[in-house]
Amino acid sequence: MNASDPVGTIEFYFDFSSPYGYLAAQKIDRIGDRYGRPVHWHPIMLGVIFKETGNRANDGIDLKGDYMRRDCPRLAAMMDVPFTWPEPFPVATLAAARAFYWLEDHDPDKAVPFAKACFHHYFGLGNDISDVQDVIYIAEEMGIDGGALAEAVTRDDIKQRVKDKTAQALDLGVFGSPYFLVEGEPFFGSDRFWQIERYLGKGKDKT
Amino acid sequence: MNASDPVGTIEFYFDFSSPYGYLAAQKIDRIGDRYGRPVHWHPIMLGVIFKETGNRANDGIDLKGDYMRRDCPRLAAMMDVPFTWPEPFPVATLAAARAFYWLEDHDPDKAVPFAKACFHHYFGLGNDISDVQDVIYIAEEMGIDGGALAEAVTRDDIKQRVKDKTAQALDLGVFGSPYFLVEGEPFFGSDRFWQIERYLGKGKDKT
Repeated sequence: MNASDPVGTIEFYFDFSSPYGYLAAQKIDRIGDRYGRPVHWHPIMLGVIFKETGNRANDGIDLKGDYMRRDCPRLAAMMDVPFTWPEPFPVATLAAARAFYWLEDHDPDKAVPFAKACFHHYFGLGNDISDVQDVIYIAEEMGIDGGALAEAVTRDDIKQRVKDKTAQALDLGVFGSPYFLVEGEPFFGSDRFWQIERYLGKGKDKT
Repeated sequence: MNASDPVGTIEFYFDFSSPYGYLAAQKIDRIGDRYGRPVHWHPIMLGVIFKETGNRANDGIDLKGDYMRRDCPRLAAMMDVPFTWPEPFPVATLAAARAFYWLEDHDPDKAVPFAKACFHHYFGLGNDISDVQDVIYIAEEMGIDGGALAEAVTRDDIKQRVKDKTAQALDLGVFGSPYFLVEGEPFFGSDRFWQIERYLGKGKDKT
């Protein structure tokens, strides 16, 4: 396997407004490191996916929403990760996703750290990330040019990139966040790392 | 703690038509044994719960249904548990639930083994369990009087028992299957045993 071979990678699909996506984001790089697999981060628009599949956000379902509100801080505490329910929740994360894909082209080493910073601001600190100004603030803290970002997220090619990524995710079977593809094998949810690890471990035994 | 103290127990809510309920049923008694906690099994009518909460069966959601059909046999293989997709799926499991509650009164030691046999027939062997005749067949294999069972499942008090259990589950926050309550702490899904174990381990440290 070489760097251009997508077979060797872990493809990580998420929405910045997904609390289980946030929790998964704390762990996935360690899994990638442990098994020598590059992790590719793909922010997508879960609202579009829910509309297409008929799947729904947990928060919109009686009792399931209550459970999620109890479960996420509990999981974060077990993982020793900061967690604050943001207000408002959920939010549209189009600006953050557009900024991510712009960085992927423009300054690729900063794309994943920027994604982590967005998650940290939203679910770690509980601050809104839906407005472009929020995203610029996060980016500038990392030394990214806020003016260039502001311009980039209005560009048609960047807007289209988020649409294409989301449509591509749907084609690949993504119905929620977080969703992982490892050599085409799908894993859904922040509590399936043991399964991914077992899959990767077996894969190694085979070679 | 004593036997009449519900604080010490693991309350296990499930529908016989839930594949993740089947997978959880393979493990939960071992968890109970390991931590010295009695496990109380409660078959419920998930269709009623979905109607009340707006939650939906995975199978009715595009892509999520496809994922479940791949995920359940994969999980079963990892757990070394037999798994056959039953046809038809899902089914109404009212007869099995009624028979379970009748046994709970009539021959309590056979109630949980009967529940396990129902799960095994449906998801282990892939045989229908929706008809009363299917349930009688399973019961008779265990030496239970099929005629008495056939009479019991038509009784109003037994019918009401399933309704009451399902309503009670809703009151307790149950929105899906499998769902566990440990000292009031809720856990949802067949992949949260690590969390239940951590919770029980901590509880033990406190005493």
